[in-house]
Amino acid sequence: MDRKRFKKQVAFILEADKEKNILRQTHLSGHGRRENDAEHAWHMAMMIYLLKEYANAEFDLAKTMMMALIHDIVEIDAGDTYAYDTAGLATQAEREEKAAERIFGLLPDDQRDELRGLFEEFEANETPEARFAHVMDNFQPLLLNNANDGGDWRAHRVSRSQVWGRQAKTELGSAEIWEYTRGLIEENIRKGNIKP
Amino acid sequence: MDRKRFKKQVAFILEADKEKNILRQTHLSGHGRRENDAEHAWHMAMMIYLLKEYANAEFDLAKTMMMALIHDIVEIDAGDTYAYDTAGLATQAEREEKAAERIFGLLPDDQRDELRGLFEEFEANETPEARFAHVMDNFQPLLLNNANDGGDWRAHRVSRSQVWGRQAKTELGSAEIWEYTRGLIEENIRKGNIKP
Repeated sequence: MDRKRFKKQVAFILEADKEKNILRQTHLSGHGRRENDAEHAWHMAMMIYLLKEYANAEFDLAKTMMMALIHDIVEIDAGDTYAYDTAGLATQAEREEKAAERIFGLLPDDQRDELRGLFEEFEANETPEARFAHVMDNFQPLLLNNANDGGDWRAHRVSRSQVWGRQAKTELGSAEIWEYTRGLIEENIRKGNIKP
Repeated sequence: MDRKRFKKQVAFILEADKEKNILRQTHLSGHGRRENDAEHAWHMAMMIYLLKEYANAEFDLAKTMMMALIHDIVEIDAGDTYAYDTAGLATQAEREEKAAERIFGLLPDDQRDELRGLFEEFEANETPEARFAHVMDNFQPLLLNNANDGGDWRAHRVSRSQVWGRQAKTELGSAEIWEYTRGLIEENIRKGNIKP
């Protein structure tokens, strides 16, 4: 074992621990507390594995799971930006760029480049891997929110066009899950959870 | 899409959400709150990917990551059994068996069998996948505990033989990480965090 290399890997692993303290706007099912980034990513990775049959294109499973596991790590420095927070979204890219530099920089060079690559691939959303990871990034909070009678949408007075604008990316990764998602959105509009 | 199949998959995914409420004895780094099962599994899966070069044998990466992600899911019904709780350990197998039946039973039959298989493979600890997943099941809380000046060991008055008994499994999955682990254990004995 190259101890210097291993210590860099351990430093990154310990830094990642802080994601457990980054709270999202989504609440756990059963009208629970707010979810954190690590929990969200854990759920996404599991869903990528379980729902892989619905992907539009073949994809690398382990790579996509890892992409999901680390896709929010920059929020340790940059904070969570709510999907419908316009002001926050304007400065998000710059804040996350700086964070990526510092956090992935803890790793040995080869893994710094690999993980930073995964993060950027996710953001660009052009490969089958990134697109299927995005399906879960959208579908996971949708499922929780739906299970909680749309509480998060109601609290933020979210409108159909806002939900649609975010969730529509799902179609690029899974036409089948997008069809199901559309049904859930319409149902929540009928129930008054999402503004028409 | 077979809607009936999809609804079973979604039911399992929503059930799994409850793992976020199962607290472990380990505390987050920075002397934080107690960690939950989902956070622990997220950390493990990431570590499997990042530290794969140290495995004793070749292994299937995606399968091992999924094994880590779901290895504690039975605790939704059976609760977390602390590694050094002798009374709890005596009834653990029976409680977890019942839980596995119910929770994996939410899935379509093929995935029920696959995930139950992964869970049992992890428990048996005989394959390269299970052994490397076990490395992370042990090494992840060790890292957090070490980062917290051994707080969890001190609170439970854990002795060298107890830590050794649990951590020694690491050698089966990674001789290199086991060597590093031994150094950390000795260091924590010297510091008085683990009883000699």
